[in-house]
Amino acid sequence: MPDTISSIISPEGSLEILSQHEVSRLHDTSKAGLHDILRRCSLAVLNCGSPIDDGVALMEAYRDFDIEVIPQDRGIRLKLTNAPAEAFVDGKMIRGIREHLSSVLRDIVYVYNEIQGHQRFDLSTGEGTTNAVFHILRKAGTLKPGRDPSLVVCWGGHSISREEYEYSKDVGYHLGLREMDICTGCGPGAMKGPMKGANVAHAKQRRREGRYLGVSEPGIIAAEAPNPIVNELVVMPDIEKRLEAFVRLGHGIIVFPGGVGTAEEILYLLGILLHPDNADMELPVIFSGPANSAEYFARIDEFLVYTLGETVRQRYRIIIDDPTEVARAMRKGIDAVAEYRRARQDAFYYNWRLTIDRPFQEPFEPTHEAMAGLALHRNQPVHELAANLRRAFSGIVAGNVKEQGIRAIQAHGPFRLHAEEELMARLDRLLDSFVAQGRMKLSGDYEPCYTLG
Amino acid sequence: MPDTISSIISPEGSLEILSQHEVSRLHDTSKAGLHDILRRCSLAVLNCGSPIDDGVALMEAYRDFDIEVIPQDRGIRLKLTNAPAEAFVDGKMIRGIREHLSSVLRDIVYVYNEIQGHQRFDLSTGEGTTNAVFHILRKAGTLKPGRDPSLVVCWGGHSISREEYEYSKDVGYHLGLREMDICTGCGPGAMKGPMKGANVAHAKQRRREGRYLGVSEPGIIAAEAPNPIVNELVVMPDIEKRLEAFVRLGHGIIVFPGGVGTAEEILYLLGILLHPDNADMELPVIFSGPANSAEYFARIDEFLVYTLGETVRQRYRIIIDDPTEVARAMRKGIDAVAEYRRARQDAFYYNWRLTIDRPFQEPFEPTHEAMAGLALHRNQPVHELAANLRRAFSGIVAGNVKEQGIRAIQAHGPFRLHAEEELMARLDRLLDSFVAQGRMKLSGDYEPCYTLG
Amino acid sequence: MPDTISSIISPEGSLEILSQHEVSRLHDTSKAGLHDILRRCSLAVLNCGSPIDDGVALMEAYRDFDIEVIPQDRGIRLKLTNAPAEAFVDGKMIRGIREHLSSVLRDIVYVYNEIQGHQRFDLSTGEGTTNAVFHILRKAGTLKPGRDPSLVVCWGGHSISREEYEYSKDVGYHLGLREMDICTGCGPGAMKGPMKGANVAHAKQRRREGRYLGVSEPGIIAAEAPNPIVNELVVMPDIEKRLEAFVRLGHGIIVFPGGVGTAEEILYLLGILLHPDNADMELPVIFSGPANSAEYFARIDEFLVYTLGETVRQRYRIIIDDPTEVARAMRKGIDAVAEYRRARQDAFYYNWRLTIDRPFQEPFEPTHEAMAGLALHRNQPVHELAANLRRAFSGIVAGNVKEQGIRAIQAHGPFRLHAEEELMARLDRLLDSFVAQGRMKLSGDYEPCYTLG
Amino acid sequence: MPDTISSIISPEGSLEILSQHEVSRLHDTSKAGLHDILRRCSLAVLNCGSPIDDGVALMEAYRDFDIEVIPQDRGIRLKLTNAPAEAFVDGKMIRGIREHLSSVLRDIVYVYNEIQGHQRFDLSTGEGTTNAVFHILRKAGTLKPGRDPSLVVCWGGHSISREEYEYSKDVGYHLGLREMDICTGCGPGAMKGPMKGANVAHAKQRRREGRYLGVSEPGIIAAEAPNPIVNELVVMPDIEKRLEAFVRLGHGIIVFPGGVGTAEEILYLLGILLHPDNADMELPVIFSGPANSAEYFARIDEFLVYTLGETVRQRYRIIIDDPTEVARAMRKGIDAVAEYRRARQDAFYYNWRLTIDRPFQEPFEPTHEAMAGLALHRNQPVHELAANLRRAFSGIVAGNVKEQGIRAIQAHGPFRLHAEEELMARLDRLLDSFVAQGRMKLSGDYEPCYTLG
Repeated sequence: MPDTISSIISPEGSLEILSQHEVSRLHDTSKAGLHDILRRCSLAVLNCGSPIDDGVALMEAYRDFDIEVIPQDRGIRLKLTNAPAEAFVDGKMIRGIREHLSSVLRDIVYVYNEIQGHQRFDLSTGEGTTNAVFHILRKAGTLKPGRDPSLVVCWGGHSISREEYEYSKDVGYHLGLREMDICTGCGPGAMKGPMKGANVAHAKQRRREGRYLGVSEPGIIAAEAPNPIVNELVVMPDIEKRLEAFVRLGHGIIVFPGGVGTAEEILYLLGILLHPDNADMELPVIFSGPANSAEYFARIDEFLVYTLGETVRQRYRIIIDDPTEVARAMRKGIDAVAEYRRARQDAFYYNWRLTIDRPFQEPFEPTHEAMAGLALHRNQPVHELAANLRRAFSGIVAGNVKEQGIRAIQAHGPFRLHAEEELMARLDRLLDSFVAQGRMKLSGDYEPCYTLG
Repeated sequence: MPDTISSIISPEGSLEILSQHEVSRLHDTSKAGLHDILRRCSLAVLNCGSPIDDGVALMEAYRDFDIEVIPQDRGIRLKLTNAPAEAFVDGKMIRGIREHLSSVLRDIVYVYNEIQGHQRFDLSTGEGTTNAVFHILRKAGTLKPGRDPSLVVCWGGHSISREEYEYSKDVGYHLGLREMDICTGCGPGAMKGPMKGANVAHAKQRRREGRYLGVSEPGIIAAEAPNPIVNELVVMPDIEKRLEAFVRLGHGIIVFPGGVGTAEEILYLLGILLHPDNADMELPVIFSGPANSAEYFARIDEFLVYTLGETVRQRYRIIIDDPTEVARAMRKGIDAVAEYRRARQDAFYYNWRLTIDRPFQEPFEPTHEAMAGLALHRNQPVHELAANLRRAFSGIVAGNVKEQGIRAIQAHGPFRLHAEEELMARLDRLLDSFVAQGRMKLSGDYEPCYTLG
Repeated sequence: MPDTISSIISPEGSLEILSQHEVSRLHDTSKAGLHDILRRCSLAVLNCGSPIDDGVALMEAYRDFDIEVIPQDRGIRLKLTNAPAEAFVDGKMIRGIREHLSSVLRDIVYVYNEIQGHQRFDLSTGEGTTNAVFHILRKAGTLKPGRDPSLVVCWGGHSISREEYEYSKDVGYHLGLREMDICTGCGPGAMKGPMKGANVAHAKQRRREGRYLGVSEPGIIAAEAPNPIVNELVVMPDIEKRLEAFVRLGHGIIVFPGGVGTAEEILYLLGILLHPDNADMELPVIFSGPANSAEYFARIDEFLVYTLGETVRQRYRIIIDDPTEVARAMRKGIDAVAEYRRARQDAFYYNWRLTIDRPFQEPFEPTHEAMAGLALHRNQPVHELAANLRRAFSGIVAGNVKEQGIRAIQAHGPFRLHAEEELMARLDRLLDSFVAQGRMKLSGDYEPCYTLG
Repeated sequence: MPDTISSIISPEGSLEILSQHEVSRLHDTSKAGLHDILRRCSLAVLNCGSPIDDGVALMEAYRDFDIEVIPQDRGIRLKLTNAPAEAFVDGKMIRGIREHLSSVLRDIVYVYNEIQGHQRFDLSTGEGTTNAVFHILRKAGTLKPGRDPSLVVCWGGHSISREEYEYSKDVGYHLGLREMDICTGCGPGAMKGPMKGANVAHAKQRRREGRYLGVSEPGIIAAEAPNPIVNELVVMPDIEKRLEAFVRLGHGIIVFPGGVGTAEEILYLLGILLHPDNADMELPVIFSGPANSAEYFARIDEFLVYTLGETVRQRYRIIIDDPTEVARAMRKGIDAVAEYRRARQDAFYYNWRLTIDRPFQEPFEPTHEAMAGLALHRNQPVHELAANLRRAFSGIVAGNVKEQGIRAIQAHGPFRLHAEEELMARLDRLLDSFVAQGRMKLSGDYEPCYTLG
């Protein structure tokens, strides 16, 4: 059994001034069915110092852990029972973790009380969804009106090689030297490297207000707990809103090597950028990795050109093994974003203008039926094909690592994906290359969760 | 015709990050029926440098004035047409006035969009009302969790004598020297004096974070525009919520000489403090004025003792002609408040614990019928009698100065108040003393708007 | 006997970190002969709330007052015996006064230990003197590199009429509205008015960093104690260094009505500006007063044109009864100063480039012999004549109000000034006009301390 | 040839407001003979990103490098010719390096102009020396009156094993988690590890004001350039003043494994603490390293007990392989320091009370004669023996690594040290153990620079 500590702590920041009504709503998290999600996310945050990155194993290890909101006249306290001892120093919780815990509570309660089932936010429409994403981010203090564009979203795998990790750190370092900030999905690997690198560079540049923004969601926060450098944490309600947060907040995007999940993110991003409404939208996208990751991007590039056409290449640039050049190109791209928005009087802090089609906003439930029904052919507009491919990859990720997906595969066998012949061959080759590169799973042989046919 | 300027300005602070939906709601103020109220309140704020303190005359003088909300991608702009030139310096609006204008817009829109007709706030209950007051104040940034108790609410007439005005300034000065802040209802007279005095004292004490909080409401803001020293402005939706804001925000209350309106406030305050639930509540109350205002408080004291009993005197202290002693007593009283709340873990920034009975929260409509029906006898709990007397005074204020009240008197003759004999005689004497002291109206002979019988 | 308080206080700011050696030097103020000057200046500062503005009477009233520096390991304390009670609130010294006291100590000790008799500062040369002035001001924190030019030096009498005082306040208000700061010589009258006015305007404009800089010297601080609004105080070692501080710090100068002292300042200023080296120097100078002070400036203007020639008028502008225009013209003038310095890469915080001839730096001792020997004729360069006239006025001021001067007059009769005929007549007329306007002394008939012949 | 950049930059901070006289003195650095030292120190600072840690090799590599002070009216500029390109990002110097460069300039000029040859500082006395150290540190902004004791001085080798480096980082991390700051001598190894660790911990604890103070001196700055994390840099004039700065600034001291240099520092420290005047002085000292460094401290402990007596152990604690315990013990020790100083009203920022005997302040010139003449026997007070042993180690360090020392050895053969028999044997054994542990030199066989006899 790991060491644990039980303690009562005060939350931070935005939870400081609460009405009695809000206090009692927080207290009632259990009745509202929020207790389980709060408990899981809190444990993930408290566990950030430990190597366990598997949500199920984590819950198992700390099965006695509990969190309770205690109302008080001057606000609330959080009562923690059997929390991981590593979150404390001599009995006092580390302040950064305390902030993360407050962020988790804030977002879960805000989303469930103010966003969901609230007439103001019609989540069945694009506008309502975008509005909800905006409100969650504003509530979290993520939208900062006074800052010039500087936020680089970094995507990539969370279980990459040491070499790829060091490379992502190096890129972060060169971004930080050029006064850029980092936004990732939390967790280790390509999520942590750029932040660590930027943190050192910001210290060198005496950039005190450096931002290390983590955007997570309840389903993955256990597997990808916010690393300690994250100084702003937002927990979005689901994968699609998290992806929307990335593309509306970020002023540029760098993709490091990853697996199917990274491929999913690439298709999400390009699907949006290829929408005719976004034809003139400025958003620099760079794929980058060390020399021996070149293969990964070569295969993806090949697949993208085949499926989405040659013009897709206008939307990204591949830079191999050159962190300085990545940072320079990104700086230049972001300067162009600033100019673009200034010319249109667009806000720097939220990209309202970007069109995101409904298919990219709607949560995709990867049942066997849904997977089998995906339209995987080139006889449709490219951004629609991108949406469908994104779903296919999303389903594969679920079949690989998510609890529900794994159970579905165990019960019904692999997903069956139907695609037109050449596309199917290409897809097969791409996925095989991931397996060959060891990008499908951390350890052990990979047993595909899909069949193509 | 006064000098005017037309200009487009940016709002301040809390209106900085808006969703597109919020922008369009602001833009639609006219459709929502808010345009008139926004126009009147804005004009009051813009007019703060001028001597006109009569709302009707003001609207007349600037009949071409208009204000419009213009949506923009990065927020909103305010388009002002024919605004008072005095609000500008070389074509640029004075920053303090720009802040007041933003406060007005924020509060009007917030109240009408988020509070009224919103399921969360059941304004027909005490709890819902108190919650609404809390939310309006929090939205305005008025609740500051980090500060020790220091907020002194100052009440009193807005058209007092020069000597009384100087006295109130002197009291403010001695409060300021002792690190206390001022909250008033805006406007001139006893609302402005304490702020001016405290401002000089704060400069001497190098107290940079001195607060000069003005709490107004749409019906009186024109007559009592925020003076330039006010550095926080809140516009509450009605008289009763404004009074509740005063007693829940303030850590102590000083009453300077005034007229019937001040008597109304005194009865409101004592009616609450006499409620059995508040028996042990700490809240220092001081009545004070220069030597020749002694008569005013002597008469009120006499009337209070007769109507509410000798014990009412435990709730206030009368200090005549001694600003230093007022400040010392208030400092001591507020230190006791701090201790009281600390012992109970109560918030310093909002007095949740204070019980305010429904009669003190419900808006009172002073029709002839309602006035005639008031139960003015001592055969009821003192806090109930206080509530009814408060209403009687409120009606007289309306009959004296408010548009609607004046019209009602013109149409139906004076209000008829029914009271038990001795109480009636006492009330008569009190009101006569106000007339004799010239406190019923600024100029001209006073024609009573009521008859007792 | 006035109320007094004895207390031990901690100094502020720059006296915080001292070496043991510095502490013992401070402690030894008495041995170094500084005790008397420290005692007198401290009393002046502590007395700021009282109406006594006569140094001799003040020392008489508080004859038991004493101040002592007490060394402590962590710094120093100041032990005050029988200090004016008005400097305290409930036994605690007002913070602004505590700051002034620390400034006095800092400047006296710094000047006597680091400037005088120190090889680095050769006070017998122009360069050495200017360097010493710079070091005293830098030590005092007066030189602020980050600020744009905004400092308006205001000169004028300290015992002016109520109307003139209100006018100076009004000008200060309009300067403050336009984001300008005030520097004066401390004390009441035209020294206080502009600061009070600017303070209110800065509050309206939410200008938190408004500067109210007082520049004094030991000989006059008792008569002109820093008013409470002064938030930076510097005590220069003598009149000439104080004048040099004004012209090197200020970005523009306004002269309000005064007496001979003001005339002395005008001649000092114009004498410098007329030096050929300063021919292209930007420095806006405005003479201003209410309508019925027009006569004062008319006579001075006439005298200046006669003595210094028509071109002198290019160096100043007279604006009567128009505070807004004064402020607008000053803003424009200061903007030109900013441009001038930017073009030459000159510092904003100290006007190194201004040439000040030795005669304007050398202390003038107004003995009968020196006064009789002044060259008062037009057969010399205008800036030299200006220097001599400045001295003549300086002597008259001494004969009128300074202890030493009064005694000299009592012993040897009035000063005898020799001038060429027409100049003598003009000078006579000017001085007579000051007498007629009641500007020569506060009260009683004026007995001239000079004869012309 | 390495990449270089030529550029003109503005210095930072304390060099902002300069008198014209000061500017010209800076400009004259070359005439004052300071040019060479300025050039060498600047190059060291600019080179911080590179692996060259050998001063001679560095000067060789950048033989065309030059730095020049250019006077300007608004301050100064620094003209750099052929500076290491790594100090720049896209042509702009990294801000932290720019700060270091300004610190170097400030300290060199201040020391040479204000300290040396200045009557105020009699460097031939203990008091004068301590006063000079104080003034240099105050000028550098190192003395911060508002902070509670938290500064941990970390000593140890700069070329330690990877394992020892990681251990020092780990200790720094646990110190940082407990809100302690780090002070080292700059450079790599045990000087860098604790800062890196503390930096991460401070980020976790959101401690924005974390201090990473580097104290260097011209002779070693090239070999031990300030790493980028150092956010305060002071260049003391010589080794002894640098050591005095460490013990007067630090609130606790941790010694990591090192070589002879570290042994020298230990003897310096214990020699002072064993002085009878310091008998009750609170100053926690901990020797710590990973498990397989235990030998190093065991040998030193043994030697200390033999030479200085059993009681020396009361002055330090050895903690092996337990970073958390090191941090906890240091926190406790520093809390005791705070209490000790509070009780005596001693400053937190500078330990005036510590007695440092002259032998510890006087620069030791390790000539063959001086080395041969050292009194190495136990027939003297322990703190005097400690002083002599310190000198012996200092000479060995010079013979090992300093240019002058190496040349002396080459010319005259090894130093001859004379000691009483048993002491000689012990010393021999200790030095042999350093050789055996590979602590005498980075690479190659070690040829001793001394003989014992």
